[in-house]
Amino acid sequence: MSAVPLVAGDSDEALRAALQAIVGERGLLCGADMAGYEQGARYGQGRALCVVRPASTDEVSAVLRLCAARRVPVLPQGANTGLVGASSPDNSGRQVVLSLGRLRSRCEIDALDRSVAVDAGLTLQELNARLESHGLWFPVDLGANPSIGGMVAANTGGTRLIRYGDVRHNLLALEVVLFDPPGQVLRLGSALRKDNTGPDLKQLFVGTSGAGGVITQATLEVHPLPRQSATALVVPGSDAALGELLQALELELGDHLAAFEGMSGAAMAAAIDHVPNMRNPFAPEALPEFAVLIELEAGALASVTGLPLQDMLDRFLEAQFERGTIVNAALGHASALWQLRHALSEGARALGRVVAFDVSVPRSRIMAFRRAALAMLEAEHPHLRVTDFGHIADGGMHFNVIWPHEAVPAYDSEAVQDLRDRLYALVVDDFKGSFSAEHGIGPYNLRYYHCYTDPAAIALADGIRELLDPLRLCGAVDFGPDPALAACR
Amino acid sequence: MSAVPLVAGDSDEALRAALQAIVGERGLLCGADMAGYEQGARYGQGRALCVVRPASTDEVSAVLRLCAARRVPVLPQGANTGLVGASSPDNSGRQVVLSLGRLRSRCEIDALDRSVAVDAGLTLQELNARLESHGLWFPVDLGANPSIGGMVAANTGGTRLIRYGDVRHNLLALEVVLFDPPGQVLRLGSALRKDNTGPDLKQLFVGTSGAGGVITQATLEVHPLPRQSATALVVPGSDAALGELLQALELELGDHLAAFEGMSGAAMAAAIDHVPNMRNPFAPEALPEFAVLIELEAGALASVTGLPLQDMLDRFLEAQFERGTIVNAALGHASALWQLRHALSEGARALGRVVAFDVSVPRSRIMAFRRAALAMLEAEHPHLRVTDFGHIADGGMHFNVIWPHEAVPAYDSEAVQDLRDRLYALVVDDFKGSFSAEHGIGPYNLRYYHCYTDPAAIALADGIRELLDPLRLCGAVDFGPDPALAACR
Repeated sequence: MSAVPLVAGDSDEALRAALQAIVGERGLLCGADMAGYEQGARYGQGRALCVVRPASTDEVSAVLRLCAARRVPVLPQGANTGLVGASSPDNSGRQVVLSLGRLRSRCEIDALDRSVAVDAGLTLQELNARLESHGLWFPVDLGANPSIGGMVAANTGGTRLIRYGDVRHNLLALEVVLFDPPGQVLRLGSALRKDNTGPDLKQLFVGTSGAGGVITQATLEVHPLPRQSATALVVPGSDAALGELLQALELELGDHLAAFEGMSGAAMAAAIDHVPNMRNPFAPEALPEFAVLIELEAGALASVTGLPLQDMLDRFLEAQFERGTIVNAALGHASALWQLRHALSEGARALGRVVAFDVSVPRSRIMAFRRAALAMLEAEHPHLRVTDFGHIADGGMHFNVIWPHEAVPAYDSEAVQDLRDRLYALVVDDFKGSFSAEHGIGPYNLRYYHCYTDPAAIALADGIRELLDPLRLCGAVDFGPDPALAACR
Repeated sequence: MSAVPLVAGDSDEALRAALQAIVGERGLLCGADMAGYEQGARYGQGRALCVVRPASTDEVSAVLRLCAARRVPVLPQGANTGLVGASSPDNSGRQVVLSLGRLRSRCEIDALDRSVAVDAGLTLQELNARLESHGLWFPVDLGANPSIGGMVAANTGGTRLIRYGDVRHNLLALEVVLFDPPGQVLRLGSALRKDNTGPDLKQLFVGTSGAGGVITQATLEVHPLPRQSATALVVPGSDAALGELLQALELELGDHLAAFEGMSGAAMAAAIDHVPNMRNPFAPEALPEFAVLIELEAGALASVTGLPLQDMLDRFLEAQFERGTIVNAALGHASALWQLRHALSEGARALGRVVAFDVSVPRSRIMAFRRAALAMLEAEHPHLRVTDFGHIADGGMHFNVIWPHEAVPAYDSEAVQDLRDRLYALVVDDFKGSFSAEHGIGPYNLRYYHCYTDPAAIALADGIRELLDPLRLCGAVDFGPDPALAACR
């Protein structure tokens, strides 16, 4: 482990020099070179003191020792694709952005064990490219290319959670670097599927947005690449029919169900109107009010198992037509249907300013929630539009509210704050849902963590932070008490 | 919430009176009535001060407040089926056994959500009986009938982990009662599949043997009952062939693989010789050295999907015969094969004193570990026998060493200690395995927690315990530092 360099003085310049002594010239960025690290992929914008890019766990450890000694806050950053402002620096100009982007040499695949030990800076796409030749993949699927460390810090969910679970479900081990003792490297867990040898401490770093420690490596369970898939876009006969359809699908084809994605007609229309190469898959009919994209997967080819997945899905859907749980189905190849699904966010942004709600409710209540939320918007904010879509099978919904560019009144951040307070209250109080289903907690929604979390749980989270990082130097959020934020209810 | 009764004096009698004031006459057991709570189902034997059986979370809370005020240690107990001594009192006669057996009224099933909120004292069999009419089950499958709270505290794994995961994978929410503040009730998590709203604090109580808090309720994800299964008992052509067989099975039938259980010939022989109604499934041939029980499951009937699972398995096995990965297959119905599997422990106990090793290694190395362990035993303890079996697909192995009744030298606890030290060193140091795959940590294996856990992780676990239970009153084990136990390497 490299020694902590001595610091000549207290100036920022001396800090940068000391950091450079750890990570080398290539490892430190200042001034204009920091732009890509100060601005998130979609959200997040701030100013950093400097960006440090260590190339090993030892260098991360030395950086934390230095920053702890000088009381300098550190913001761990992966691919900076987070959606709650937790992966970009704040506006203070005092945070050192610690990019894990150069920590990417390790990627050890054990194909029979179906596990991979991977450096935190490798991206999801890079990992999957390396797994492919082994017939494997890491199937947490989402519309971005995050780093593995960032995925752990956000506990990414995505579109295939119903089949594979979230990152937490597939995380076997973690290497983290702490602020207390400064630079302490902890290796938690193992590549084993069964290992009950005490408290599972790695859980403290999953879904906590970098608070408390820097993730440097992860060991993941990986899965056989599917050899067959089958896709359909269908229109449920009613809200109740949507639940019946899902239940029937799980009973009859649950071994293969990989995605069950709801898309509102408004969301599809925005994408079709504003994203290149999109078309209405129901043409010549109009778009329905709501449709569901179903995807099945099988591990083996039909020629091996005698199991033609698309035939099975078609047969199932025919029976559902007869029952009336579905009333229409779209034409189009799977790739075109998924392109439409992945274009929904871009379509929403074309309509105006997006006030994004990443919520979930019990899946038995998801359509009731949708009706209630739409009714509330219609009554209280008739100038706003909604282009919602969701991961229905896991109760998730991206309830995107659009403030149209041309709307009267014009965009107003106070009104948006009121809207957020109202809608989250509907989600949490009335529908026992979550105000952050899969994006985690960051500066953008920390207010609601304080609103909706039991003070006893906040006190416990604070105690844990005290153990890991007593100076509160690491990450964008603090899960301890904050009286200023606790008053939003 | 009921008030803490005042305590008349410091005597045990006053304590019992105060406890009885909380839980009523039926809720307190003394003297001979405690026998069933002082003696574990298979392991564990001690003496309790008394047994208190609260009937609600409020009563649990009041009991903890009373015990905290009087500094009385509390041992939470479910069905007392644990295998590491963590569910029975120690020999001090000073612990209050807090049985959750009366906390069993809540069992709220949401069939469409596939979730159930259940009191901690309900047993696995009772839960599954209630789920059955909804076409659902909680598929963590093991050879005992534990309480739900005990399953969470042990993070039970069992025979179907490859398909469903362990308890942690299926745990959505938890209600726990803490010692600090005394009697504090925490509700952690939700019934939601996606809910990333801060640190997942319920994880602190999973697999920690009751240390730090009393689990009073759990919300679990449940699964559709399989409508079809297919079973086979096969003999792999070699150690390497076993891995090839597993890999081929995952690639071709992985959507259905539910169990892949290894059984040594010695383990099968002991069961056949000593457990009623068992027969050699390979008759008239002799038992093989090692065989694998494969089980597939499908969610739907063959008549619905056109997918006859047993045919698929038979076709797969024929191809494996041709490849040479399997060289024999047993006859017999699935129920007879599983009865044999579940009789292995009883068979082992008939041969002598069992020194049980609940270990795991990366599954790519499980047969290499088995060879090395057998060779070590043969060389160093030729008077001992081994009747091993294991959950091969998740790297788990119950490496049961038998000290035969008739062996010379006779059973010797010091020699057993040496044997345990040697074998766990082989598992952990040489094979990167776990010394407790699925039974958790209790007084019986706490020594190895201290041997093999990073002191920094022990310090962190200790800090967490300090937050939850600063007086260290709850549970059978302490995960903090213990210099007396740290010297076994």
